[in-house]
Amino acid sequence: MPPEISFDPYSSLYSEAAQHMRSSEIRDLMSTAGRKDIVPFSGGLPSIEGLPKTEVISVMDSVLKNGLSEALQYGETEGRYPLKSALCKLMAREGLKGEPEHMLITTGSQQALDLISRILINPGDAIVTEGPTYVGALCAFTAAAPRVTTIPVDEEGMRVDLLEESLDRLQDTPPKFIYVIPNFHNPAGVTLSQSRRGKLVNIAEERDLLIIEDNPYGLLRFEGNPIEPITARSRKNVVYLGTLSKVVSPGIRVGWVLAPPPIIERLATLKQSADLCSPNLSQMFAEEYINRGLVEKNMENLKPVYRSRRDVMLSSLEEHLPSGCTWTKPRGGLFIWVTLPPYIDTRKMLPLAIEEKVSYVPGSAFFPDESGSNCMRLNFSYPAEEQIATGVKRLGKVIKKEINLYHSLGLDRE
Amino acid sequence: MPPEISFDPYSSLYSEAAQHMRSSEIRDLMSTAGRKDIVPFSGGLPSIEGLPKTEVISVMDSVLKNGLSEALQYGETEGRYPLKSALCKLMAREGLKGEPEHMLITTGSQQALDLISRILINPGDAIVTEGPTYVGALCAFTAAAPRVTTIPVDEEGMRVDLLEESLDRLQDTPPKFIYVIPNFHNPAGVTLSQSRRGKLVNIAEERDLLIIEDNPYGLLRFEGNPIEPITARSRKNVVYLGTLSKVVSPGIRVGWVLAPPPIIERLATLKQSADLCSPNLSQMFAEEYINRGLVEKNMENLKPVYRSRRDVMLSSLEEHLPSGCTWTKPRGGLFIWVTLPPYIDTRKMLPLAIEEKVSYVPGSAFFPDESGSNCMRLNFSYPAEEQIATGVKRLGKVIKKEINLYHSLGLDRE
Repeated sequence: MPPEISFDPYSSLYSEAAQHMRSSEIRDLMSTAGRKDIVPFSGGLPSIEGLPKTEVISVMDSVLKNGLSEALQYGETEGRYPLKSALCKLMAREGLKGEPEHMLITTGSQQALDLISRILINPGDAIVTEGPTYVGALCAFTAAAPRVTTIPVDEEGMRVDLLEESLDRLQDTPPKFIYVIPNFHNPAGVTLSQSRRGKLVNIAEERDLLIIEDNPYGLLRFEGNPIEPITARSRKNVVYLGTLSKVVSPGIRVGWVLAPPPIIERLATLKQSADLCSPNLSQMFAEEYINRGLVEKNMENLKPVYRSRRDVMLSSLEEHLPSGCTWTKPRGGLFIWVTLPPYIDTRKMLPLAIEEKVSYVPGSAFFPDESGSNCMRLNFSYPAEEQIATGVKRLGKVIKKEINLYHSLGLDRE
Repeated sequence: MPPEISFDPYSSLYSEAAQHMRSSEIRDLMSTAGRKDIVPFSGGLPSIEGLPKTEVISVMDSVLKNGLSEALQYGETEGRYPLKSALCKLMAREGLKGEPEHMLITTGSQQALDLISRILINPGDAIVTEGPTYVGALCAFTAAAPRVTTIPVDEEGMRVDLLEESLDRLQDTPPKFIYVIPNFHNPAGVTLSQSRRGKLVNIAEERDLLIIEDNPYGLLRFEGNPIEPITARSRKNVVYLGTLSKVVSPGIRVGWVLAPPPIIERLATLKQSADLCSPNLSQMFAEEYINRGLVEKNMENLKPVYRSRRDVMLSSLEEHLPSGCTWTKPRGGLFIWVTLPPYIDTRKMLPLAIEEKVSYVPGSAFFPDESGSNCMRLNFSYPAEEQIATGVKRLGKVIKKEINLYHSLGLDRE
């Protein structure tokens, strides 16, 4: 057995970068996700039950029978060409025409975020994100120690008008990139409107800035028509990130980047030293899964389930949350963003919620500073409808109690 | 279609780290590996033919039938506990007792090298490696911009006596770690002797230094008894890297780290932002594969094949290489290291070899500077015996021609 260590004898060895790394609050919360009695609104887990099991097994069987040697051997750093071709078909469904030559396969889009941070960010560089933004992106960016400017979002997505003001202030040190989650935003649940997409592209082109478009949820639209990705409007100024985590499976860890060739080349060089290549096995599985049209089949199964769960959550919020609380009404994706009265601190309130057997992610996890402290992210894709109704009722109880407490102490007028 | 780009309009955006990243020479050589007429001594590909195919399919089948939902869902950042338990059994075969709690699953050991570089190396920090050393490690380290001191190797592995002298010179800025490949070294083919392992541990303990022990090939021993890993002698001062790439399959991308808890914790925090988690699918496959005793079965199949191929290569080298050439005699692994007369430049000679339809990796790829220019790495695990005989014959022809050329010009006495 190694010695028991109560302090860290290695602390003098760590790099400066290691000091910037932060653990995702969500990951720490995951430890409660295993408790069966807690309604898990804190996860970002897609539902796996909707997957066509027989077909999944048949696809894997075919991969192993027809391509065993290839599946088990090293692959190309850039990823398999046939997989990239198959992914182009998926992108086309949202109106984006990509080319396999301009793509890189990554270990989920999380790896893309990490590689992008590393090839672009020097410590102290400016970057721009939405506020709130995806916590995994914040973790990846933060490891490279940038200064992060956040732009608020409303029901139409990023406040592009406020972006312009921020960019004016950053004129002397323009940001390395503007990171955007256009569809069914994680955590905000909102979608960037058509007109704002156009404005965003104009801004990027005029100022010669790079946009990172992260689109894990685009195909998970419950209603309305798909809006053309930002990348479809400007290939020169946008790096596009896709992933199969939400439309096939997160367990296969297949993501991709579509970007201008010089950027793909840099990313591939770094991917080579990061992990050589992504598993051929997962890639071949994904490629046959897509080519058999199973993503569509899976979406047909999943979307009605998610939509009903969203509906139950929305009506439960209406029923159980006290006045002074607001929330977004996503037309797809996995998440609803709830805003409580400004004096409530959702991080402090979390233990009370856990006691009442319901979990969520405190809003401040999605900001680089301490903003969002009166907000929370709720996941509706994973818990079943009954669980959702029960969970929101419990949540309502906790919030009411908290509001009453502040009210009785006269702290609600701060 | 994106615009055709002849220069890089994004060059002003790249981070300083991006400037240090280098592409592996081996990867570039891989493009010739597809040419069927060339004998590929340049690869590092294990032979996949030896895998028990029926069992591989049966294992995957069982994973999907009994654990489909788990296999396709997100996993823990640290990796699956049952896999780590199974890996402990593999480590025990070489005399190393590990604990799942002190392990992290990585995407091949390449990811471990990358994560380690990032948590430990600041630009300009000193690190120590063998010279030659694994090119993938050099790529991972180089991205973090350290100053690399190399220690020569001989038939007994790293010259630990010379290590001491180097450490004395580095006294004011002690290295962040000493990176060692103890068994069937890539590229040198040599094995660190029992007594040098002991000395190395003593040095690390006396000077309070960290050793990174990278052991991908330990179980690929053709003759003699396993030598206890360095980690078994000092848990406090050694980070151990293992991988299934050479004993199961590189395509599943399963590697691991065994290290003191504070280091595992740092690595896990970074892995989370690097790719969230490794694929559950690969992990569950690996865990059942090991638990069914198939690694042993696979090794029983592979080792006689590799041993014969090594024997053919050794006798062919004896037959076809001119005097003034020497090579290592590995007792396991995949590689032989050939040293030519000092005036030969193997990088310059490579096009001639390709013309003669044989490839190798020039020695300088395995050094951080331009050392090793008269050396080459030959892989004997991938080509079949006949191919090996033919390839070495071709290689002998190229080398003789080159020696004669230098001789006729009087340049061989430089």
